[in-house]
Amino acid sequence: MVKALLIVLDGAGDRALKELRRKTPLEVARKPNIDSLASKGVTGLMYAIAPGIRPGSDTAHLAIFGYDPYKTYSGRGAFEALGAGLELKEGDVAFRTNMATIDDDWRVLDRRAGRYIEGAEGLERALNEIEIASHPEVKVIYKHTVEHRGVLILRGPSLSNKVSDVDPHKVGAKVLKAKPLDNTPEAKITAEVLNEFTRKSHEVLAEHPINKERVKKGLPPANVVLARGAGKLPHIISFKEKYHMKAAAIAGIALIKGIARAVGMDVLEVKGATGGLNTDVKAKFSKALEALRGDYDFVFLHIKGTDAASHDGDVRAKIGMIERVDEVLGWFLSEVDLPDLIIAITSDHATPITVKDHTGDAVPLLIAWDEIVSDDVNSFDERACMKGGLGVLTGKDLMNVIANFMGKLEKFGE
Amino acid sequence: MVKALLIVLDGAGDRALKELRRKTPLEVARKPNIDSLASKGVTGLMYAIAPGIRPGSDTAHLAIFGYDPYKTYSGRGAFEALGAGLELKEGDVAFRTNMATIDDDWRVLDRRAGRYIEGAEGLERALNEIEIASHPEVKVIYKHTVEHRGVLILRGPSLSNKVSDVDPHKVGAKVLKAKPLDNTPEAKITAEVLNEFTRKSHEVLAEHPINKERVKKGLPPANVVLARGAGKLPHIISFKEKYHMKAAAIAGIALIKGIARAVGMDVLEVKGATGGLNTDVKAKFSKALEALRGDYDFVFLHIKGTDAASHDGDVRAKIGMIERVDEVLGWFLSEVDLPDLIIAITSDHATPITVKDHTGDAVPLLIAWDEIVSDDVNSFDERACMKGGLGVLTGKDLMNVIANFMGKLEKFGE
Repeated sequence: MVKALLIVLDGAGDRALKELRRKTPLEVARKPNIDSLASKGVTGLMYAIAPGIRPGSDTAHLAIFGYDPYKTYSGRGAFEALGAGLELKEGDVAFRTNMATIDDDWRVLDRRAGRYIEGAEGLERALNEIEIASHPEVKVIYKHTVEHRGVLILRGPSLSNKVSDVDPHKVGAKVLKAKPLDNTPEAKITAEVLNEFTRKSHEVLAEHPINKERVKKGLPPANVVLARGAGKLPHIISFKEKYHMKAAAIAGIALIKGIARAVGMDVLEVKGATGGLNTDVKAKFSKALEALRGDYDFVFLHIKGTDAASHDGDVRAKIGMIERVDEVLGWFLSEVDLPDLIIAITSDHATPITVKDHTGDAVPLLIAWDEIVSDDVNSFDERACMKGGLGVLTGKDLMNVIANFMGKLEKFGE
Repeated sequence: MVKALLIVLDGAGDRALKELRRKTPLEVARKPNIDSLASKGVTGLMYAIAPGIRPGSDTAHLAIFGYDPYKTYSGRGAFEALGAGLELKEGDVAFRTNMATIDDDWRVLDRRAGRYIEGAEGLERALNEIEIASHPEVKVIYKHTVEHRGVLILRGPSLSNKVSDVDPHKVGAKVLKAKPLDNTPEAKITAEVLNEFTRKSHEVLAEHPINKERVKKGLPPANVVLARGAGKLPHIISFKEKYHMKAAAIAGIALIKGIARAVGMDVLEVKGATGGLNTDVKAKFSKALEALRGDYDFVFLHIKGTDAASHDGDVRAKIGMIERVDEVLGWFLSEVDLPDLIIAITSDHATPITVKDHTGDAVPLLIAWDEIVSDDVNSFDERACMKGGLGVLTGKDLMNVIANFMGKLEKFGE
């Protein structure tokens, strides 16, 4: 049976950097194992969404999984909630949140309340007791995730994700009032609920013993919840229905886990998978091998470190992360005992070191498999893959190309 | 700050010509400066609209500016009017016009009334006094532009651009009655107004002293206005809103100026820019340099001469025009002192010498910038750019690709 492993090196794409003599990190990195797959397989370029369009990690992954983000993207909050292990019901509106420190004038002193919040579970319990007086039919669910971060779910019969953030996204600014972003009553209600929750989060947290203790110790109190990125579950058909395969996802960060769950993949937890540069790459590849040896047809393996290094503008760390993945891939290839495995490698978008943010540049793509008609390209990088046999694809085509090789697609017509 | 210059060589694309031993004019022309940009940058092929589709200069430029011509194109007349410096209001219907010579039987003797019309301003004044008895709410605005050409605007509360031309487009044919092209009352009214205007233009012009004088001198009288290409302002979001940049256009001909104005670019006037083979190319590049040194982020520079030569079937003139642009580009490159300038060069469509009209062939495209990942192509022509790293794009993608490199696009998602 043909199985497939799709490895996405988040933000690995880059530009011709002056510090690398106008080469890219993928051109400079030593990556004999990835390049051996490029030699064996077929390559090309890919725009996750469309030429030039700058994707978020969320819209890029939706597109790569075959879902049109213009039709299905409904805000980041829902993916974060799913990624944090919460169950979302239809109609729920979910937000990413920070616990932050504000002064009496509602001005932000620290967006992360010092980042490490000892006893955050106690604060979580207090927040879950908040009742919304203006709309008593709405239920509040708050879950602390890591550090200052958490997820807020509003559950009620008529809520909308078309509301603006209360998080002003900068220190010194006042906390914002959430505003409806369209003219529906649902958006108006949701904004009212969010504003009441925000006010009450401050009342509850400011008086909480954990915060009184923090202040005594000279630590910034986690005295408000700042929500952003309202999202609802997208209405989509599942990955299984679309491609007729049992799929698993391995990722370190909540957002990507959430997208994988939203499309119906099983998210496999890996100890030591952090989404940072300190992630345990080998543990992730081990888990992928185990899943492929088991009953999964398809494994999506996400590496965030390449993007994290790029956002920091750290070209050495970016190259280092690519080289670490290559090394572990070498181990994986020496271990793998599946006769008919397709390995695809790409990036969801470029995050050039010079930009420190996502851009809409084309990224390289390779697909290696014994039966594939290979091209002449023998390096996985932005320049070499220009000559690739796949030409230039967009993200929405990738899964069809892979599923076709796997023999999973139904025939259209006779 | 990254700025960009987009040079469009109108109709420069061509085919494998027998007279050039099956090479194209772009392959044969000596153009070391353009080719040096091809070496430095990345290249590809482009179809302004879609593979094989034959664009007009208007629809091609709309597409290249990122507007879907199938959704936004609403007739050429509006662009001509804007390009002639007229202000258009929402609801106005504008036409391109010729002053022509007809006989008493309304048969066209000369579509251009001898082309040069001394004292055309006097005729213009007379035409502006025409009143539409059948629809007195409609106002007539006529502006003479150059030679026999002019623009007619009908301004009224309920007019449509869905009317046919009165211009029969050939000598010996009778002037046509304008007909509504759909079943709306607006189209019917507009056809009635245009027919009354056409009848009255003949009455007014035939009796005008300037024409009596022309007849005495043996010149063909400019005794009717023949309208064609009814157009309305398209409903579009502005270039500034779309790409977040301050943009200027430099062009010799009214149509292209009008499209640039319609999308919200500032049209910079250049003395000596004629849109013909006698245009002052250096004056245009000087103006572009001035604009880029100033506060413009983006300059679109249009060269019409390549298309003009192609419509004449004059391969030598076409090659000569390409070489003149290349020479001036060399001067521009030696002068330019902007550290981070993107230069893109393409053609809006092919105008093969053998066809003498626009075709839907792919045209070459290059984008040069320090940070761009370059390909191996070192000539800007139809054949070399087949191997380009950009692959095959359509016009609608071009501005996103450029704006992405400029850092002007918002991220979609997070």
